[in-house]
Amino acid sequence: MNRLEAKKRIEQFLLEDVGSGDLSTDLVFGKELFGSGIFIAKEEGILCGIDMIDLTYEAYGDDTVKTELFKRDGDPVKPGDVLAKVYGRVSTLLPCERVILNLMQLMSGVATLTAKYVATLDDDSIRVCDTRKTYPGLRLFEKYAVTCGGGYNHRYALYDGVMLKDNHIAFAGGIEKAVALVKSRLGHMVKIEVETETEQQVKDAVKAGADVIMFDNRSPQEIKKLKELVPSHIITEASGGIRLDTIAGFKGCGVDYLSVGVLTNGVRPLDISFNSTEAIKV
Amino acid sequence: MNRLEAKKRIEQFLLEDVGSGDLSTDLVFGKELFGSGIFIAKEEGILCGIDMIDLTYEAYGDDTVKTELFKRDGDPVKPGDVLAKVYGRVSTLLPCERVILNLMQLMSGVATLTAKYVATLDDDSIRVCDTRKTYPGLRLFEKYAVTCGGGYNHRYALYDGVMLKDNHIAFAGGIEKAVALVKSRLGHMVKIEVETETEQQVKDAVKAGADVIMFDNRSPQEIKKLKELVPSHIITEASGGIRLDTIAGFKGCGVDYLSVGVLTNGVRPLDISFNSTEAIKV
Amino acid sequence: MNRLEAKKRIEQFLLEDVGSGDLSTDLVFGKELFGSGIFIAKEEGILCGIDMIDLTYEAYGDDTVKTELFKRDGDPVKPGDVLAKVYGRVSTLLPCERVILNLMQLMSGVATLTAKYVATLDDDSIRVCDTRKTYPGLRLFEKYAVTCGGGYNHRYALYDGVMLKDNHIAFAGGIEKAVALVKSRLGHMVKIEVETETEQQVKDAVKAGADVIMFDNRSPQEIKKLKELVPSHIITEASGGIRLDTIAGFKGCGVDYLSVGVLTNGVRPLDISFNSTEAIKV
Amino acid sequence: MNRLEAKKRIEQFLLEDVGSGDLSTDLVFGKELFGSGIFIAKEEGILCGIDMIDLTYEAYGDDTVKTELFKRDGDPVKPGDVLAKVYGRVSTLLPCERVILNLMQLMSGVATLTAKYVATLDDDSIRVCDTRKTYPGLRLFEKYAVTCGGGYNHRYALYDGVMLKDNHIAFAGGIEKAVALVKSRLGHMVKIEVETETEQQVKDAVKAGADVIMFDNRSPQEIKKLKELVPSHIITEASGGIRLDTIAGFKGCGVDYLSVGVLTNGVRPLDISFNSTEAIKV
Amino acid sequence: MNRLEAKKRIEQFLLEDVGSGDLSTDLVFGKELFGSGIFIAKEEGILCGIDMIDLTYEAYGDDTVKTELFKRDGDPVKPGDVLAKVYGRVSTLLPCERVILNLMQLMSGVATLTAKYVATLDDDSIRVCDTRKTYPGLRLFEKYAVTCGGGYNHRYALYDGVMLKDNHIAFAGGIEKAVALVKSRLGHMVKIEVETETEQQVKDAVKAGADVIMFDNRSPQEIKKLKELVPSHIITEASGGIRLDTIAGFKGCGVDYLSVGVLTNGVRPLDISFNSTEAIKV
Amino acid sequence: MNRLEAKKRIEQFLLEDVGSGDLSTDLVFGKELFGSGIFIAKEEGILCGIDMIDLTYEAYGDDTVKTELFKRDGDPVKPGDVLAKVYGRVSTLLPCERVILNLMQLMSGVATLTAKYVATLDDDSIRVCDTRKTYPGLRLFEKYAVTCGGGYNHRYALYDGVMLKDNHIAFAGGIEKAVALVKSRLGHMVKIEVETETEQQVKDAVKAGADVIMFDNRSPQEIKKLKELVPSHIITEASGGIRLDTIAGFKGCGVDYLSVGVLTNGVRPLDISFNSTEAIKV
Repeated sequence: MNRLEAKKRIEQFLLEDVGSGDLSTDLVFGKELFGSGIFIAKEEGILCGIDMIDLTYEAYGDDTVKTELFKRDGDPVKPGDVLAKVYGRVSTLLPCERVILNLMQLMSGVATLTAKYVATLDDDSIRVCDTRKTYPGLRLFEKYAVTCGGGYNHRYALYDGVMLKDNHIAFAGGIEKAVALVKSRLGHMVKIEVETETEQQVKDAVKAGADVIMFDNRSPQEIKKLKELVPSHIITEASGGIRLDTIAGFKGCGVDYLSVGVLTNGVRPLDISFNSTEAIKV
Repeated sequence: MNRLEAKKRIEQFLLEDVGSGDLSTDLVFGKELFGSGIFIAKEEGILCGIDMIDLTYEAYGDDTVKTELFKRDGDPVKPGDVLAKVYGRVSTLLPCERVILNLMQLMSGVATLTAKYVATLDDDSIRVCDTRKTYPGLRLFEKYAVTCGGGYNHRYALYDGVMLKDNHIAFAGGIEKAVALVKSRLGHMVKIEVETETEQQVKDAVKAGADVIMFDNRSPQEIKKLKELVPSHIITEASGGIRLDTIAGFKGCGVDYLSVGVLTNGVRPLDISFNSTEAIKV
Repeated sequence: MNRLEAKKRIEQFLLEDVGSGDLSTDLVFGKELFGSGIFIAKEEGILCGIDMIDLTYEAYGDDTVKTELFKRDGDPVKPGDVLAKVYGRVSTLLPCERVILNLMQLMSGVATLTAKYVATLDDDSIRVCDTRKTYPGLRLFEKYAVTCGGGYNHRYALYDGVMLKDNHIAFAGGIEKAVALVKSRLGHMVKIEVETETEQQVKDAVKAGADVIMFDNRSPQEIKKLKELVPSHIITEASGGIRLDTIAGFKGCGVDYLSVGVLTNGVRPLDISFNSTEAIKV
Repeated sequence: MNRLEAKKRIEQFLLEDVGSGDLSTDLVFGKELFGSGIFIAKEEGILCGIDMIDLTYEAYGDDTVKTELFKRDGDPVKPGDVLAKVYGRVSTLLPCERVILNLMQLMSGVATLTAKYVATLDDDSIRVCDTRKTYPGLRLFEKYAVTCGGGYNHRYALYDGVMLKDNHIAFAGGIEKAVALVKSRLGHMVKIEVETETEQQVKDAVKAGADVIMFDNRSPQEIKKLKELVPSHIITEASGGIRLDTIAGFKGCGVDYLSVGVLTNGVRPLDISFNSTEAIKV
Repeated sequence: MNRLEAKKRIEQFLLEDVGSGDLSTDLVFGKELFGSGIFIAKEEGILCGIDMIDLTYEAYGDDTVKTELFKRDGDPVKPGDVLAKVYGRVSTLLPCERVILNLMQLMSGVATLTAKYVATLDDDSIRVCDTRKTYPGLRLFEKYAVTCGGGYNHRYALYDGVMLKDNHIAFAGGIEKAVALVKSRLGHMVKIEVETETEQQVKDAVKAGADVIMFDNRSPQEIKKLKELVPSHIITEASGGIRLDTIAGFKGCGVDYLSVGVLTNGVRPLDISFNSTEAIKV
Repeated sequence: MNRLEAKKRIEQFLLEDVGSGDLSTDLVFGKELFGSGIFIAKEEGILCGIDMIDLTYEAYGDDTVKTELFKRDGDPVKPGDVLAKVYGRVSTLLPCERVILNLMQLMSGVATLTAKYVATLDDDSIRVCDTRKTYPGLRLFEKYAVTCGGGYNHRYALYDGVMLKDNHIAFAGGIEKAVALVKSRLGHMVKIEVETETEQQVKDAVKAGADVIMFDNRSPQEIKKLKELVPSHIITEASGGIRLDTIAGFKGCGVDYLSVGVLTNGVRPLDISFNSTEAIKV
């Protein structure tokens, strides 16, 4: 993850939550008060976003906070685990608390859910990946969290991958024509994925030379059959309505990737809390 | 909701998802192609964010898209309901699709969940409200959605309300001293809320002249008793672990507000889709 | 005051005044020249903005300047008082000089004027407060300065307090209806103030349950009478044309707050200067 | 004035004052309510900033407000003069009101004060000009206002003019050396001004080939004598402590420019108000 | 090209060149003067950037300029060709002139040079492509221009393609290990390119399953031989020191892509000028 | 050069090239890997932009990179010269490489070309200067580079100098009227340049009191004659089509400045490379 990009975003998040100032902290504590605190996991899951602690204090303009990290991104955590200990100005620790928690809880929630999908699927030959269904403005953080949970990233955005859907295909006059049209203008570092629903479409996509073929809303059984139509150097992906209670059914279906929108959309945040301990006047 | 603020944010969301350009759309469709599309509800819920459609096209710099809206924020929707019809450049409609959906689905999800909490509580004398546990950068949209679902907004951020918690109180030397300290410096347009856990704390907060007293992690039974200690001109709030399966228990407990963090954090988005119909070359 | 927000603004102020570079400094002094300087008060008043010195050097991207502060915000100063001593790169000290002075002079001017109003009023039971009549883009700095001068802050902006004026009231159909309408939709952490001119309006506002009642353009005598209509748990404010030569007349009128637009608008800056002493080539 | 630059700044001013939304307006009026209003002068002066009305509505994202302007920048106004009439959404007119007034009052205050200085000086051969002592972030607006009041602009910032003061001169080893050093590196489109206090310094500056010679803190009598030392193709400027009650003394002193810091710093805003008339529901 | 992204950049370019205002235009022409002008090619080449005209006027905040375009991006132009005719406020046309020309000349220069490389190579089976050697901040415009000249885009940036160079390979312990490491963590929509210099490296890259193999600094003869080692489903690219006077030597060498850094770096701008015709006072 | 302004721009350049992250670096190297590298000149020229190294690492948010600089801006360099040695996190060094090189190569290219023009002209009495024909967004860097190559800066932008061209003159009714009009409104720190083509125009410009007179597209012989019409206190400039193969002809023509558009537009970058040496795992 690009720290510059992350820090720019966190500055905005701090302006959103702190704005002209943290009234409670400003009115009760003086600027020269120091204190410490700990970040603790309150439930079981996969940690993600531990660097948000440092980045947020830095973004807030205070580079004197001392942080000690006890866990790394991707580590499993259980209730009571101390994730980090921090020591610094109370006038920095308190206003930064919620931004750090909101981000780290979201990221850990995404990593935890991803890990659950991977474990439930229980098939090393199939990779679980995300989609573009992320919270606006938070894609950087969520896509990273998916990888910490053992998942993979689909294209990041509209600019780094071609996905030909029904309306592109219809307008171009068929899959072969659509792929040919794109290939005639696209550079060699971008992949082309074609969405398919029928056997014929899969055959067309193979013939057209797609890099990736997506089976849209197909059952594991259908996928098995469709997959046979695809030579091994073309990657296959299944998409559509894959949930935690259905993913096990895809085990052994032979597809290369399962893309799951809910990994990054509507995820329950992992419960993490910040406990500040005594403050010391300096 | 401030449209200027909303539009500035949406510009960022578009840059996140479109960046240097929508490769698929740019390579297949020409700039001068027009088409239409509809936004449809795929499940039952409360709509919120219908204005995101116009705002996103505007933010993308295209003010020629024609939109017809069939529902308003706060309206109940059911599967198949057409929310809006749009007509314009395909090179605008397609790249804007996901940003609109990601936002509108989140906002409608928040409104829908809020409405469920309100309905499940089923007590007109108690208001359900949100917290600062929102997705970083999206508070503007989520806080608005809570009101569309029949909920109320707690303080927006650290700058527009004082909330005295245990560490403020401990440092100041007790509730009365903390409130007095704050009152001696705070203007008359900001309210002071005090977090309490025990009877004594509630009594102290009343004596101190708090505007709002919060019962932290108290059961409905405890709340009933604590509430009796509070004169009617002081507002009461209960907070902590209130979930959809427990909220009904708070019916009749007499508190004024129930604040619920999960209203804006980890909400399942409401399923809404965009169907583009035929494109017409001009 | 949120230092992140302050620093972001100061960066803009530096870009305004330095732009592509300080020609005089760049052409005469080399990058590796160090020097020292002192900030001195040139007239009597209340100091405010001493942190602008550090913040501006930081915002300019130079964290090597050493500053020694001899006064704090809120301290009275007299001609000749040395406020701070600084030592660092001449290529930082000179381009930052005017931004620091322009800000610190304005802030000290506001604090000084506020202190004069408070002293002239000479009534501890009445608080002097500001309004939204601030210089665009400088509210953060001016509102803070008011508190350093012994004044209080009214609502910060349109988003953190409700103020019902004649046109809101007329449209809603009277004060009671207006307040009821607002209360039915507003959260519990925002206060409602009602502007009144007549006895009847004050009575209506009391009945409606306003949090704050403003007596608009009323004389001290009228205020005394109107105040009697208001129960003690409702805060009262007088506003309109209160100037340094009239404020003494409000002593003992019984109102809680006097809001004064000129505290932050058209204030004479406090004269502070920067004297750079010898430069040393390194 | 660059409208793009002005609009960017006004967007920030609106975000400062409106933020997440104008609570009072949002809660009382609906989005589809239209109304009209007038901007009226409440005292005598010179108008400046009439374009702020349109620019602010545009910056707020509403290009449907109809405005009729009755005065132009630089026009004298008297109490009761209607400056502009506007018609549009109440949800635009009200939140924009204070930003427009704060800006237009400041700009008109600057123009009015400048005009007073010019009139009081009453000497067509001497021009009154401003300095860099402007409110941070507002220089664009204030410098323009000076010209509307009949004054002239000194250098805009550190990047568009060279001003050699005592520390530059001391470091370079005298005026001639300082000017020579600068001339050896400076392009031909930037002017060099030298600050002088003594006869010898004036002579040195003339010899050095300064474009502009400033007499710092000199009396009118001293200026008359010093001016005789300067050939006519070199421009002269007097600076330092020139106030409304002393400027008449400079009449006939022969200098070309009088620079006055207080023109743009601590100016009393011109009283202008906005009266909204009846609102019409659509 | 994403118009929103382009417009945001152009706003910055306008602020760079116009800043506080176009002094010459402001002082000579009034705001209400209208005029027309034409953009003319002064030399032969390929046009690119014709949309910059509209976009710049829009970015400047004036949507009343009427433009008539006579050429499209990619069209060949010759001296004297009128590219566009514009009619609007002189106070918009003049300040926007240089930004439009600077951009359009650069973009047309890139397109023209690309077309020359393609024509000189004269081999339809080999595509000419760009690199990341673009002017900072201008990649969006230059990458687009390459496609208008008949070239192709290499990866846009560090985020949308993997390129394994010697230091990655050395650190990972060889090409196979490096590719395997990357493949174990990379999603399926990003391609992996491996830089090679020797036969053995090419063999390793093939074995490792690279998507693209680059022959770094190899002669056409070497490329022919190396290419034989690569199966047809892997794309090949040659890079390093390919210039206009050497590219013809690569004809028939069998590689798929030739990447050329100078296409976007150090390009001579195509001469285009703006002639303003009579202005009409309104 | 203003470091704050430079750093803000470099942040944008980094976001352009690194975006969500450097995939190759992130996937191969860990965060805690350190390495060193050197910047080496690959051809002869004048160095410019050595500070971009530090500034870019700082802008990327890593202030732990140690840099040792062996050359300064303006120094001549030859192939193999080590310009700087750096040591720090590989995860900083690699993603920052291209931004540093793209900037430093451009700046050094501009300085080198400028030095060539100056040397070829071989006339100390004539200064070579730049124009506004710079790459959009890069003027700060290019104008600075011109001075490092021994050239001078013309006006920076439209806001810091008046240039009266044919259309201004025609509209005002002649040179004298145009200059008089401008002088009546312009402050004393901005210079006025008049573009002339004929003897009569030069005479008019002299009479009008222009500060600078430009001979547009005149031959050296014509310039010699025209120059005689201009008194010595008015600066003269020749412009138009001056190239490396024609500039020697201007030697001794007597003009003060030769402005050359190609100094900053279409310049061949100076070849500089970055060699990273072994990485050390920490």
